[in-house]
Amino acid sequence: MSTASTATVSGLMAEIAHIGTDPARGGYSRPVYSAAELELREWFLSAATERSLEIETDRNGIIWAWWNPAGLAVTDAVVTGSHLDSVPGGGAFDGPLGVASALVAVDELTASGLVPSRPLALAVFPEEEGSRYGLACLGSQLMTGRVSRERAWALTGADGETFADLATRNGLDPRYIGRDQERLDQIGCFVELHVEQGRGLVDTSSAIAIGSAILGHGRWLLSFRGQGNHAGTTLMTDRHDPMIAAAATVLDVRRLGAAVDGARATVGKLDPVPGGSNVIASRVDVWLDVRHSDDAVVAALVADIAAAARAHALAENCEFTLTEASMSPRVDFDPQLRGRVSSVLPDAPILPTGAGHDAGVLKDEIPTAMLFVRNPTGVSHSPEEYVEDPDADAGGHALATVLTDLLS
Amino acid sequence: MSTASTATVSGLMAEIAHIGTDPARGGYSRPVYSAAELELREWFLSAATERSLEIETDRNGIIWAWWNPAGLAVTDAVVTGSHLDSVPGGGAFDGPLGVASALVAVDELTASGLVPSRPLALAVFPEEEGSRYGLACLGSQLMTGRVSRERAWALTGADGETFADLATRNGLDPRYIGRDQERLDQIGCFVELHVEQGRGLVDTSSAIAIGSAILGHGRWLLSFRGQGNHAGTTLMTDRHDPMIAAAATVLDVRRLGAAVDGARATVGKLDPVPGGSNVIASRVDVWLDVRHSDDAVVAALVADIAAAARAHALAENCEFTLTEASMSPRVDFDPQLRGRVSSVLPDAPILPTGAGHDAGVLKDEIPTAMLFVRNPTGVSHSPEEYVEDPDADAGGHALATVLTDLLS
Repeated sequence: MSTASTATVSGLMAEIAHIGTDPARGGYSRPVYSAAELELREWFLSAATERSLEIETDRNGIIWAWWNPAGLAVTDAVVTGSHLDSVPGGGAFDGPLGVASALVAVDELTASGLVPSRPLALAVFPEEEGSRYGLACLGSQLMTGRVSRERAWALTGADGETFADLATRNGLDPRYIGRDQERLDQIGCFVELHVEQGRGLVDTSSAIAIGSAILGHGRWLLSFRGQGNHAGTTLMTDRHDPMIAAAATVLDVRRLGAAVDGARATVGKLDPVPGGSNVIASRVDVWLDVRHSDDAVVAALVADIAAAARAHALAENCEFTLTEASMSPRVDFDPQLRGRVSSVLPDAPILPTGAGHDAGVLKDEIPTAMLFVRNPTGVSHSPEEYVEDPDADAGGHALATVLTDLLS
Repeated sequence: MSTASTATVSGLMAEIAHIGTDPARGGYSRPVYSAAELELREWFLSAATERSLEIETDRNGIIWAWWNPAGLAVTDAVVTGSHLDSVPGGGAFDGPLGVASALVAVDELTASGLVPSRPLALAVFPEEEGSRYGLACLGSQLMTGRVSRERAWALTGADGETFADLATRNGLDPRYIGRDQERLDQIGCFVELHVEQGRGLVDTSSAIAIGSAILGHGRWLLSFRGQGNHAGTTLMTDRHDPMIAAAATVLDVRRLGAAVDGARATVGKLDPVPGGSNVIASRVDVWLDVRHSDDAVVAALVADIAAAARAHALAENCEFTLTEASMSPRVDFDPQLRGRVSSVLPDAPILPTGAGHDAGVLKDEIPTAMLFVRNPTGVSHSPEEYVEDPDADAGGHALATVLTDLLS
């Protein structure tokens, strides 16, 4: 392990490059509270301890590591950090890059001899990707009370385990999850560094961008129910096959999404039940992801897709239901904080993003800002996601620059 | 538990009705060597022991329970039986009905005072459905050597466990699985009783049919590879989304299959990888099941579907591969044995089936025959599969009638 005094972001990323690799999908699978994510948490706790940070895990499972060398009262704190969980078969950088950069920024602050006027906390948020329970940014959504305790209890993963049981197994008391007013009152602002998830920086001379906004986005469950039956004995004319309605809907998602300027509409998850190769499915669940900078456009596009899905279900004599799993309106990051970040990083372009982040959730409570680090492939949530070492290190330095300004 | 002397098929089925129920999918999930299937095996072993049958589990995991009251040399034996494993979310009868009927038939033979001229064995075949390793009739395919030992070793289930490891964990020695010439030399014929999987008996006055043939059928894996990416940050025009090509292919499977008289073409299993709702898939695996009474028609239909799939992949700038997972040519059951069965069940209609069976695999080695018991829903591989109690009991009696003739 690099010692704190010589650590670089690229060096820290190399330390964890072996954790949670997924030979089947490629890339990394680090679901929240999996062995891989717990190993990353141990790594973070060890790195924070090495830097003499004061560590606490709150009642929502968010880790806080405090840098407060002047022993200031904990109020108006600056917070930075990100998440350690990944989508299945994701990249190495989405999440951990922000955590590693925060650690290196602390080193740079320490080395600079800065006497901070405000405390600093490094935060690690759980289940940012929502890949285990289908609710992105679950940690910050619990902290702000946007997701209720009762709703969180009932969340059930693909393995059948409820969030309440998983949380208990990992040392939390499910009775006490939920809005954390005391913590929110302690925080003055949040700055999250993240790998860029598009091509906004690819052809520029800048390794770093500043976030302007997050597109409005949501997830819907389109469920088609037909009649399960034997694939070999059921005549083609006797079928009520929900797979047919689901497939026709997938094509309409593409067609309708592409027709709306600036929209993104995706089906990345489709579950036939029971899912045997020699069985006509009795139910097919289709997960729809839709995003646009105008929330009304999102709603209209989902309505069009639902109408098409309903017609396809009817044609196959299947039932159709639509359930909104989540909807996050467009988020504009705090203009004043962004201006301040921009004043110390004058060359960094200002970019919006289509991806959700904890900084987007927390934005309703406190001023938040984001830094994006160049990703030469422009590819995200995939093994192809990438950051060059010099860009990773430039990101850590940019974050330190921003924090120095905020803490002075 | 019913005692052997008073057992009925419907009573035995009621004894096991609680084993392996699947609250999520409905019906039953009893994969080979799961807790549920092992419990059914224990039930069978106990019922066979109660009837003083001599039990052995062979090196391929097939259970044999011998009824040989006259102590005859084991040659030219009559075999009956079926399987205990189910598809995910399948019905109660597919498999166990043949096993329960065999037990009751033994009771009837014993009660009749028959002095058999040939030994009788009750057989339970593992992994008939192929729902764990994707290869239907794995037990009989190993016994006949149609699936090689080496191929079986390499089979890997959805949980990542190889068949070799699973077999070892269940007391088999993988070195010795494979063709069992000694056992094949002992068998004179095989009669399998099974729930009907279509509507052939629904509107007739007969509870029992005799099988004529199994449609030629096969399974193919159509794999589409594109570029995994973030659902929110990737423009619709920048996508190479294999889900689009897969969905278009599903619709062509229906269209092309319906255009061929007597064909059945089904996609019941479709796996996006990585399968996150906020991720454009990098790969989608589509499982295709095609059946027809003419093997050449099956091959032509699969070729047409593959051509369409290739075109859809090309349009989306994806790669496409087609892999044949299995192909079973049309099976005509032994005419002589069928004639003999028909002579003692003169009112039973003669019906073909679209479903594969161990009796179809063994047919190349020994004369085989099938009895079908009426299923009032006509639905199979689904919780809706059903057999009325009187029909189940009539099936047991019909099997006893056939066995009495064969053993006399």
